[in-house]
Amino acid sequence: MWGGRFESGPAAIMREITPSIGFDKRLAAEDIAGSRAHCRMLAAEGIISKDDGQKILGGLDAVEKEIAAGEFVFKRELEDIHLNIEARLAELIGPAAGRLHTARSRNDQVVTDFRLWVRAACSRAEDGLLELQRALHAQAAQHLDTILPGFTHMQVAQPVTFAHHLMAYVEMFGRDRARFEDARKRMNESPLGSAALAGTSFPIDRDATAKALGFARPMRNSMDAISARDFALEYLAACSICAVHLSRLAGELVQWSTQAFGFVKLSDAFTTGSSIMPQKRNPDAAELVRGKTGRVLGDFVALATVVKGLVLTYGTDLQEDKERVFDAADTLEISIAAMAAMMADLTANPARMKAAAEAGYPTATDLADWVVRVLQKPFREAHHIAGSIVKAAEERGLTLDALPLEEMRKIEPGITSDVYAVLSLESSVNARMSLGGTAPARVREQLAHWKSQLA
Amino acid sequence: MWGGRFESGPAAIMREITPSIGFDKRLAAEDIAGSRAHCRMLAAEGIISKDDGQKILGGLDAVEKEIAAGEFVFKRELEDIHLNIEARLAELIGPAAGRLHTARSRNDQVVTDFRLWVRAACSRAEDGLLELQRALHAQAAQHLDTILPGFTHMQVAQPVTFAHHLMAYVEMFGRDRARFEDARKRMNESPLGSAALAGTSFPIDRDATAKALGFARPMRNSMDAISARDFALEYLAACSICAVHLSRLAGELVQWSTQAFGFVKLSDAFTTGSSIMPQKRNPDAAELVRGKTGRVLGDFVALATVVKGLVLTYGTDLQEDKERVFDAADTLEISIAAMAAMMADLTANPARMKAAAEAGYPTATDLADWVVRVLQKPFREAHHIAGSIVKAAEERGLTLDALPLEEMRKIEPGITSDVYAVLSLESSVNARMSLGGTAPARVREQLAHWKSQLA
Amino acid sequence: MWGGRFESGPAAIMREITPSIGFDKRLAAEDIAGSRAHCRMLAAEGIISKDDGQKILGGLDAVEKEIAAGEFVFKRELEDIHLNIEARLAELIGPAAGRLHTARSRNDQVVTDFRLWVRAACSRAEDGLLELQRALHAQAAQHLDTILPGFTHMQVAQPVTFAHHLMAYVEMFGRDRARFEDARKRMNESPLGSAALAGTSFPIDRDATAKALGFARPMRNSMDAISARDFALEYLAACSICAVHLSRLAGELVQWSTQAFGFVKLSDAFTTGSSIMPQKRNPDAAELVRGKTGRVLGDFVALATVVKGLVLTYGTDLQEDKERVFDAADTLEISIAAMAAMMADLTANPARMKAAAEAGYPTATDLADWVVRVLQKPFREAHHIAGSIVKAAEERGLTLDALPLEEMRKIEPGITSDVYAVLSLESSVNARMSLGGTAPARVREQLAHWKSQLA
Amino acid sequence: MWGGRFESGPAAIMREITPSIGFDKRLAAEDIAGSRAHCRMLAAEGIISKDDGQKILGGLDAVEKEIAAGEFVFKRELEDIHLNIEARLAELIGPAAGRLHTARSRNDQVVTDFRLWVRAACSRAEDGLLELQRALHAQAAQHLDTILPGFTHMQVAQPVTFAHHLMAYVEMFGRDRARFEDARKRMNESPLGSAALAGTSFPIDRDATAKALGFARPMRNSMDAISARDFALEYLAACSICAVHLSRLAGELVQWSTQAFGFVKLSDAFTTGSSIMPQKRNPDAAELVRGKTGRVLGDFVALATVVKGLVLTYGTDLQEDKERVFDAADTLEISIAAMAAMMADLTANPARMKAAAEAGYPTATDLADWVVRVLQKPFREAHHIAGSIVKAAEERGLTLDALPLEEMRKIEPGITSDVYAVLSLESSVNARMSLGGTAPARVREQLAHWKSQLA
Repeated sequence: MWGGRFESGPAAIMREITPSIGFDKRLAAEDIAGSRAHCRMLAAEGIISKDDGQKILGGLDAVEKEIAAGEFVFKRELEDIHLNIEARLAELIGPAAGRLHTARSRNDQVVTDFRLWVRAACSRAEDGLLELQRALHAQAAQHLDTILPGFTHMQVAQPVTFAHHLMAYVEMFGRDRARFEDARKRMNESPLGSAALAGTSFPIDRDATAKALGFARPMRNSMDAISARDFALEYLAACSICAVHLSRLAGELVQWSTQAFGFVKLSDAFTTGSSIMPQKRNPDAAELVRGKTGRVLGDFVALATVVKGLVLTYGTDLQEDKERVFDAADTLEISIAAMAAMMADLTANPARMKAAAEAGYPTATDLADWVVRVLQKPFREAHHIAGSIVKAAEERGLTLDALPLEEMRKIEPGITSDVYAVLSLESSVNARMSLGGTAPARVREQLAHWKSQLA
Repeated sequence: MWGGRFESGPAAIMREITPSIGFDKRLAAEDIAGSRAHCRMLAAEGIISKDDGQKILGGLDAVEKEIAAGEFVFKRELEDIHLNIEARLAELIGPAAGRLHTARSRNDQVVTDFRLWVRAACSRAEDGLLELQRALHAQAAQHLDTILPGFTHMQVAQPVTFAHHLMAYVEMFGRDRARFEDARKRMNESPLGSAALAGTSFPIDRDATAKALGFARPMRNSMDAISARDFALEYLAACSICAVHLSRLAGELVQWSTQAFGFVKLSDAFTTGSSIMPQKRNPDAAELVRGKTGRVLGDFVALATVVKGLVLTYGTDLQEDKERVFDAADTLEISIAAMAAMMADLTANPARMKAAAEAGYPTATDLADWVVRVLQKPFREAHHIAGSIVKAAEERGLTLDALPLEEMRKIEPGITSDVYAVLSLESSVNARMSLGGTAPARVREQLAHWKSQLA
Repeated sequence: MWGGRFESGPAAIMREITPSIGFDKRLAAEDIAGSRAHCRMLAAEGIISKDDGQKILGGLDAVEKEIAAGEFVFKRELEDIHLNIEARLAELIGPAAGRLHTARSRNDQVVTDFRLWVRAACSRAEDGLLELQRALHAQAAQHLDTILPGFTHMQVAQPVTFAHHLMAYVEMFGRDRARFEDARKRMNESPLGSAALAGTSFPIDRDATAKALGFARPMRNSMDAISARDFALEYLAACSICAVHLSRLAGELVQWSTQAFGFVKLSDAFTTGSSIMPQKRNPDAAELVRGKTGRVLGDFVALATVVKGLVLTYGTDLQEDKERVFDAADTLEISIAAMAAMMADLTANPARMKAAAEAGYPTATDLADWVVRVLQKPFREAHHIAGSIVKAAEERGLTLDALPLEEMRKIEPGITSDVYAVLSLESSVNARMSLGGTAPARVREQLAHWKSQLA
Repeated sequence: MWGGRFESGPAAIMREITPSIGFDKRLAAEDIAGSRAHCRMLAAEGIISKDDGQKILGGLDAVEKEIAAGEFVFKRELEDIHLNIEARLAELIGPAAGRLHTARSRNDQVVTDFRLWVRAACSRAEDGLLELQRALHAQAAQHLDTILPGFTHMQVAQPVTFAHHLMAYVEMFGRDRARFEDARKRMNESPLGSAALAGTSFPIDRDATAKALGFARPMRNSMDAISARDFALEYLAACSICAVHLSRLAGELVQWSTQAFGFVKLSDAFTTGSSIMPQKRNPDAAELVRGKTGRVLGDFVALATVVKGLVLTYGTDLQEDKERVFDAADTLEISIAAMAAMMADLTANPARMKAAAEAGYPTATDLADWVVRVLQKPFREAHHIAGSIVKAAEERGLTLDALPLEEMRKIEPGITSDVYAVLSLESSVNARMSLGGTAPARVREQLAHWKSQLA
């Protein structure tokens, strides 16, 4: 495979550890695309003959069809996707196949194929996130007036609308999309033509191959082109952050589905039963999405740890890059899809949401704000007054708006019956009219903003 | 501190675990800036009186001076920077201090201060990287014709120039800078005015405070504003990737400084001796830079793991965000600075570099290319011929250009004496004229490109 | 500091990045202990004079007192704890101080001090975990008959007792203790006497110094002794796993404290209020414990990443080991202490627990088991029958034991009124008499087993 | 599959994300073993009839044979290995198959199977490490007198023997083995019989099933048994630490194989060539082993992150545990095997090693020690003298033992020609007679110690 200098073949253990064809066959389409671009350029520049060029392109078409038809035999002894395709090409078209490798190295192919793959993975993540945002947006649009507790520390804090809560995730996934977009743009430079590491003495046209492969431009330094894996790391980092957001939302679904919360019902499609407990309705898909975050983070750690230790240019350590990226991409893409489907599918339970909000004194802040505004107390004092009134209500087992005025006046004589106007959930929600606040009028603005973005 | 409802104070252990003032005092400047913006807006909107506004601004000036002068007493029992400043403000200006907290929550302050801090950290990283690129560029400009081995698998591969090698890192650090820039832009939205999580009923002007703090706009969703930490994660991810690049370069310095390589000499300033071995010259600074990469990666893992588990909105788990970010920022900034100084300071040893290049048959590819070009063989066959010739040279202990023609012709009779023209290091380097290649003419173009970027 | 060969001093940036005294002063006690052991051995072997030995020991006593009294001036220009103490010793006793360094290197000191510190950290973790187990055990002993829902997928599954649930954590923390114990034993070998890396030509007695420092034996290979950091990694791994357990329990506390669950009330000491929401009662300490897990995991990642890249023997990269270990130890120890205090302090709410258990059809499995046992159906069929009965009860809004017999018989005619005996929570719990099961009789056995272990 | 309560089947996306059969079919042997033990116990206790017991055992034998013969059809719609085997059993033996599930849940099976698998993985790691230690020991035994430079900071420090260097790794891998052994013992408790989470009302005999499966005892708490994954985390932590050691050694091989070092030659079997550079001899296997460390660390991070977020007992997040463990096990086992084979196979180059040692003034410490011993100077002063002499030798381009006496006496007039006796590499090595030191006599002791351990 690599020349006439070795006296014995790789031992059995090497056959086990070295070949990457088991996973890098996923790069077949990219490898063929790269070879086509390289071949056309070689012919255009007269580095190979037009005739050889035509033969090679014809052979690549044939290989592509074989792979698409599932007829291509991937051979472990041919180590990787590049050599597998090259060997088959030689079988199909003879010696011309060898000339495709002129002015190109396997290093070239490895990084070109992989960049193309990661670039496409960025696009798939962006598309998936767009669907997820749409599902969240559609659900939110149904629940502009559905009130649930807003939590801090998982304690009931202030009433918010379900639309407001869901739109927070639309924002997060919007930034995730932007991260994939930035990563995609930054990596969209062509390494092809770097040869082994130093460039080549053949008069190649790297602008042409870059353009043919949809890259914005050739990379400026061939050693960097061969060595760099920050494009893969940036992709994995964007995946990790996105997976953190998915995990947060999945965690909400798991919690909202508990009997104690009961805020949502996931469809039968997204829950499973138990082999032993007949009453169970497990939010399996949400748990899987939550669990898969660790995996994506692990993929980032794995590759960062590997690349950290390498001097320029290529080391076989880098063969580890592909499986980590494939794993993260598969994991993220199914997670996004599952989450989009779950969000589209879930049924909110406004009654349970409202009951939960009522139970936690979430309008105590409104009471304090009223004391500031009407009685002109400094906020800290108003906060103390409201805290004491909550304590009084707790001791009597009453909600705030059910606590008699006289009890409040024992604590702060200035309070009048006007205060009850701010103690209901609806008045609290409607009052939060600041930009970005939970008042339906404000959330409607957010929905409108995103409607055009997600169209 | 938090109202009249608690019957007993926090136990000793809580005094140990809860306070964040030990580290979040680094946010003092940001906290004051946020308070100024909030105060001016409150006064402009008539939410507080002009007079109170003036008092508060005066008090904030006084607090700022005390902190600058080292006279401010940070109190652990006041838990965090926000309460420390607020309490001091109250001592200085009395009840008006309490009104600063109108229409604002501690959550507001936490996220606003922290975003401001991380935004500035992005800028510092960008500035530091610019200096580092300049140092690399200046060093590269000295070594357009200095030849060293280009390595793959740490084996001598093909000759390259030292300028070319160094410029590969200029490219990497250029992308790192761009990542910090993207992160900075994305996070540059104001969370201030989100109140506890739901917005506020006070008629605040979030556009005004956003503008005053240099934010591009207010965040669109208050729950997102309070909950989101992807800005910190994105910063840590950019730090991690940058640290990987620093580690790679530091690893080169450590290797180049070994007696076996001897490619560079670090200045006395950046090496240390041994307490026991008088002859030692340890590349301590480079090793420290290399070692600190793990730490930055650990910081990312730590925060991602924390945020992953949290539903909306705030949980005290998030208090862990600041120390991880401070640690990463401190670590990265000193590492970049040390690397810039080392690069400016090092002395290359062209003689050792050249000797190393000569030892490894690095022009074997040129030989193979010659066979393709002149003898019109397919590359794979040429590769086999060159491999056999290398083996013959190895067996005789000769370099390629010292191997007699007759020995080469035993392997491939078509070879003529013209072949020697491509077997020297210089001819090999000069021949690699493809875009991004190692030929001095090409590297000169890269230098020119970056010169304008780094001006 | 390191001899006469350097022409210029380290630059300012080196003064910033190199010194470790800021953190390694925590090794002062270990450094003095190591020096005492080394000094006594040197004198006993006649390598230094008795007189010098006495002077050195006296000087070390004086240094120890100065440190204890806070009078010792740690100097950044003396870089680390070893040189700080050595320099002060020289000031105090003159030239004899220099002889302490005979047959010893700084590498020796670094690894000996650090091993001693980590060994003690293992013991502290074991002690802390013992206290935590006691607190859990004491709480469990109060709640042998308190029934709450056992969850899978956070869905109500089967009734269990609170004692049973708490004892699960006693088991986990028991294994954590054992991990620290194993780590401690494995690391309890003395590296002292390895000198720089190769041993020494002085006739030292490593058995004597090992014994004096409480080590089981000297390490067998000096290169390993200087290079190995698996003792620190194993400690960090044990910390990480223990932190995962702490996080799980902390997560339970956070969830149990929600208004929706209401299973426990944390004492005022372990909750905090809100600066804006007067009704809040935030489980801050539990959230902090949960959040700190990420940090400990990050510490492990950081050190593993560093060590991974190093060939033998010492590299300054390893200077990163101490801060990561100190950080993990501080974090874990306060987390364990906080958790022990919270567990001792919390008040369970059996009424809420029972109500939650009743709501989720948790005896459906008992119904299925009854069908197997009494009606002799295969389990899968019984499961189907029970599932259908749960569905019928859900549709009528009834609990299982309130569903009329006729409704059950519509689904499975063989069911008789005897079935009601297995449908109550208490009967379900009492029936689970298998070893390790939730029946109070069984949990009492577990309590008894641990009572003797925790005495 | 799970009862009669679901109105619609899982959607396509659930079919994609939920099934684990793709990877958990690796648990087939463990699942059958667990079922056999459970079945025999059920029959012995009279919970099922003897006849049913015989049918089930016969059916399990048949299933086992089908799997061994590759004839078993794993079905994705049957989700996991447990349901696949159960369904096939039902086809083979009819209704009796359903009775195997009496007093057992899928949770039971999941944790029992997985524990058995991880226990075996520990044993495989131990066995592999033993082989690796033997290969290192055998290589070391050949090189008791082969001198190479001992490095600190990758700078030549002091001469050591190759045997000494290799034996350092024998120590490390010895501790790794012990970690797997400790982990294996700790996890060797049976979870079987915990049922869904609370135990069962059937009169099962957990001691009997524990014994049948080779467990030391049943776990004491069924909730812990279902929830705990610290056994998997401890295994992954041990793998991570072991992988760090493998990476260090692999890094040595990569470095030793460089042209600049040339200390070893890996066999053809463990190197590969280049597709473009005919002269290359790449240490691929060593690089792969080094690169795979990141992956194992990533697996630990992944699972720790997942488990961290889970309250008791089971959540589907835990389905992520198996792939991470399988991946780590596969990765570690092939890495250990490759390393053992490389160590057995490599050829040291004593001449290059010696030349490298001579180049770095590695006996400067011996010079300093001589000054202490003979001239009775304090070590710090002797260190300064030796440093100055090294500088003088460097300036003249001489090794220490070639520097004329008069030059040394210019720096320290007390030096006599006796000093030359300590300046050779051999005398330096032979002098380091302290326990664990590099003197051949000492290393011979280490070899003897390990010879009996590794027999």
